[in-house]
Amino acid sequence: MHPYVAELIGTMFLVLFGNGVVANVVLPKTSGNDGGWIVIAAGWGIAVFIGAFCSSEFSGAHLNPAVTFAMYLADDSFGLVDGGGYIVAQMLGAMAGALLVYVFYREHFRTASDDPDGMRACFCTAPQIRKLPQAFLCETIGTFALILPIFLMVAPGFSSGPEPVDSDPVLGLGSIGLLPVGLLVFGIGLSLGGTTGYAINPARDLGPRLIHALLPIKGKQGNDWQYAWVPVLGPLTGAALAALVNALL
Amino acid sequence: MHPYVAELIGTMFLVLFGNGVVANVVLPKTSGNDGGWIVIAAGWGIAVFIGAFCSSEFSGAHLNPAVTFAMYLADDSFGLVDGGGYIVAQMLGAMAGALLVYVFYREHFRTASDDPDGMRACFCTAPQIRKLPQAFLCETIGTFALILPIFLMVAPGFSSGPEPVDSDPVLGLGSIGLLPVGLLVFGIGLSLGGTTGYAINPARDLGPRLIHALLPIKGKQGNDWQYAWVPVLGPLTGAALAALVNALL
Amino acid sequence: MHPYVAELIGTMFLVLFGNGVVANVVLPKTSGNDGGWIVIAAGWGIAVFIGAFCSSEFSGAHLNPAVTFAMYLADDSFGLVDGGGYIVAQMLGAMAGALLVYVFYREHFRTASDDPDGMRACFCTAPQIRKLPQAFLCETIGTFALILPIFLMVAPGFSSGPEPVDSDPVLGLGSIGLLPVGLLVFGIGLSLGGTTGYAINPARDLGPRLIHALLPIKGKQGNDWQYAWVPVLGPLTGAALAALVNALL
Amino acid sequence: MHPYVAELIGTMFLVLFGNGVVANVVLPKTSGNDGGWIVIAAGWGIAVFIGAFCSSEFSGAHLNPAVTFAMYLADDSFGLVDGGGYIVAQMLGAMAGALLVYVFYREHFRTASDDPDGMRACFCTAPQIRKLPQAFLCETIGTFALILPIFLMVAPGFSSGPEPVDSDPVLGLGSIGLLPVGLLVFGIGLSLGGTTGYAINPARDLGPRLIHALLPIKGKQGNDWQYAWVPVLGPLTGAALAALVNALL
Repeated sequence: MHPYVAELIGTMFLVLFGNGVVANVVLPKTSGNDGGWIVIAAGWGIAVFIGAFCSSEFSGAHLNPAVTFAMYLADDSFGLVDGGGYIVAQMLGAMAGALLVYVFYREHFRTASDDPDGMRACFCTAPQIRKLPQAFLCETIGTFALILPIFLMVAPGFSSGPEPVDSDPVLGLGSIGLLPVGLLVFGIGLSLGGTTGYAINPARDLGPRLIHALLPIKGKQGNDWQYAWVPVLGPLTGAALAALVNALL
Repeated sequence: MHPYVAELIGTMFLVLFGNGVVANVVLPKTSGNDGGWIVIAAGWGIAVFIGAFCSSEFSGAHLNPAVTFAMYLADDSFGLVDGGGYIVAQMLGAMAGALLVYVFYREHFRTASDDPDGMRACFCTAPQIRKLPQAFLCETIGTFALILPIFLMVAPGFSSGPEPVDSDPVLGLGSIGLLPVGLLVFGIGLSLGGTTGYAINPARDLGPRLIHALLPIKGKQGNDWQYAWVPVLGPLTGAALAALVNALL
Repeated sequence: MHPYVAELIGTMFLVLFGNGVVANVVLPKTSGNDGGWIVIAAGWGIAVFIGAFCSSEFSGAHLNPAVTFAMYLADDSFGLVDGGGYIVAQMLGAMAGALLVYVFYREHFRTASDDPDGMRACFCTAPQIRKLPQAFLCETIGTFALILPIFLMVAPGFSSGPEPVDSDPVLGLGSIGLLPVGLLVFGIGLSLGGTTGYAINPARDLGPRLIHALLPIKGKQGNDWQYAWVPVLGPLTGAALAALVNALL
Repeated sequence: MHPYVAELIGTMFLVLFGNGVVANVVLPKTSGNDGGWIVIAAGWGIAVFIGAFCSSEFSGAHLNPAVTFAMYLADDSFGLVDGGGYIVAQMLGAMAGALLVYVFYREHFRTASDDPDGMRACFCTAPQIRKLPQAFLCETIGTFALILPIFLMVAPGFSSGPEPVDSDPVLGLGSIGLLPVGLLVFGIGLSLGGTTGYAINPARDLGPRLIHALLPIKGKQGNDWQYAWVPVLGPLTGAALAALVNALL
């Protein structure tokens, strides 16, 4: 599989499972309605794990422009063109995943027109307390706490690009070797998800936000473009900081 | 162990644990009553993991006619006769598991005669919002999101048939190598279980529905045969789509 | 470490963690009060995992007379004397663990004198619906669903006795290779814990029941000796059935 | 990376994730508000796992003066100077982590001034029932139940110091080999976290308590210095007991 295709499919599953769990908890009349924060955080952790094991062998499982940016900064052999292709694929995958979530939960969206904030939460993040510089800081710290541990992880199964991973002893383990990355995101949700809803991934937020803007959802909220830069620039800043600290260590 | 016996026993445990957790949460006077969606989703994830590690070494751990159908489409050496035997064994196993759940929770069923929907939910699935084409679509997408990741998984421990798995490096790991499949189903429950209750497996739904029809449960609901085709044809369609996409990748 | 000592310490930790989570959820003024069934089931699953990795290398990690009985039936080299020693050690370990839980939560027991059933639940199990033959059946099925999967597990890390496990490829994995057993017990709790509270282990129930009888707890309930045979004979029957089915497969 | 730096970074992440999950559950207007004990216990378990895989390769992943003390007692080659350096690094890391949690949840602290106990709980522990000798006993038992299992664990990936871990077969597994330690702490939280909030780590409690004392938080509670010795001396006593029992086994 071409690395770009792997990034597209992996990010599509990431957002299908990730935004899917939000829909299951937030939308009315679902089985998981009001299931609690443990459901959301576990769902996103598994979402990353699934996206990772679907793509790791082919692309190194970035699934996140912030990860790609950090790998670009850390690895001279991973160039601008590669990185750009990865990010385009991630955006397309995130948009496809968001579209699938809408199609999947369509009937439940129809009964949710009195909760426009809840419907938008099934696409993109919003801060619990609207202070944008603080939200930027939270997204920066959250992403730093994603990417520095990935760098420090023992044999994480992540790599800067489509190099053969069969030689990686971790991946001799099969998919279970990628579980720590899913658990890391589970932990970020549990611990650092409380303020901005932990986008920590520009594609995960911006792609679905575009889908929210494009879809004719009855009773939908505005797209909150004033906030949209926060879950893009915050994660990229956190990634740069993590790459910097990793280079210093 | 013969692969058919392994499929029967694996699917029996799958349904014993899977429908068991529904009974524990839904029926009155149980310890787990009203335990929340996290209990249901975790219970089904573990159910698949247990069914898988009981059968993987002997049959490749399909436990699901949709998985068998996808393997049949993907692997020329796995023929119609093999596939048919697998599916018969899965149906028998699912029926045995459903019978065991009823026997196990019998006293609690006796106190539940005022909740016929809840009692039936301990056997088979029903949509939260009754739009059958949409339910069909949900079962298709849910099963697609089960089977394409299984195909893409790094060394999943699944195989089209009873080939020797001792040569599989993953299974040198023991049962832990099969955990990603359980986590995948945990994730499907968390994220895509909200609309139809994620049958994603014709045997898991139809077998127990037959047992519900046959058992003389006091106060029981009808068997909803009008819906019964959805969790059969939806999963098979999703499996075919996953096999197709996998062949194209 | 002598295998008997390993069984004692492993079972002590099993009951310290297992009964500890019940105390945390059931007793008043604890941090985990009313934490839900997911807390109980997860706590017992981890309890088994911890007990197992503390003893596996030295005794094969039975921690349960029903497991010892099944191993005795299945393995000619594991004799009556060995089995008797294991079971005595398990009983002593379970009693020590129950005593530790009482000492640990002593101040909370003092505030619980108006809930004698809750206090006793921190020691031993009781059925939700008091039909003893049905409870016996539930304990039999629950233990069958513990021990047959252990027999079928790929390289479980369990063995009939203190044979060198360094030669076991699973244990080359370290403790993580024993996680499937913990997850199995997590699943039994989620799915089959709803009727009798899943003793599935004579030592886990009888040992703490003796401690409940001996300790001068203010306001305590009777020890329910009429029920005490159920979580002893049910598990042994389930173990014998599992050994029989395994021999036939 | 120098072992001291690894201890500092690992403990920083431990406290960022650990105290972060408390803030997410306890502070008002967070996404995880009132998320339940499962969120807290899972969050601390993951926190330890993340801290461990960030530092294991470089320092042996102590992250806790009680672990360092036990390793000092158990291993003649790990001297006083090494141990002292480790503990200083752990204290600095814990303080940095606590500061990050405050900065991250700053806007939510601003809305919490009517709950000074909740705000302080985001830094350091307090007993549910104020009996200091009993609290000391709980911290001793809780830490004993952390450290003896670490000693008994099959190939835990922990070591007394910065020896090369590439030779450790567990670490050939990558980070997943360290998951049992995270699960052990998850279990301690579920089962033994109900009385004192399971500090089981002097640095995790004293470091953030100092930060709570230093920060100008509006409406903050006193620092409860009368209690501060309990989560320091209790864990050290438990560590000594565990090292003693381990030496006798």
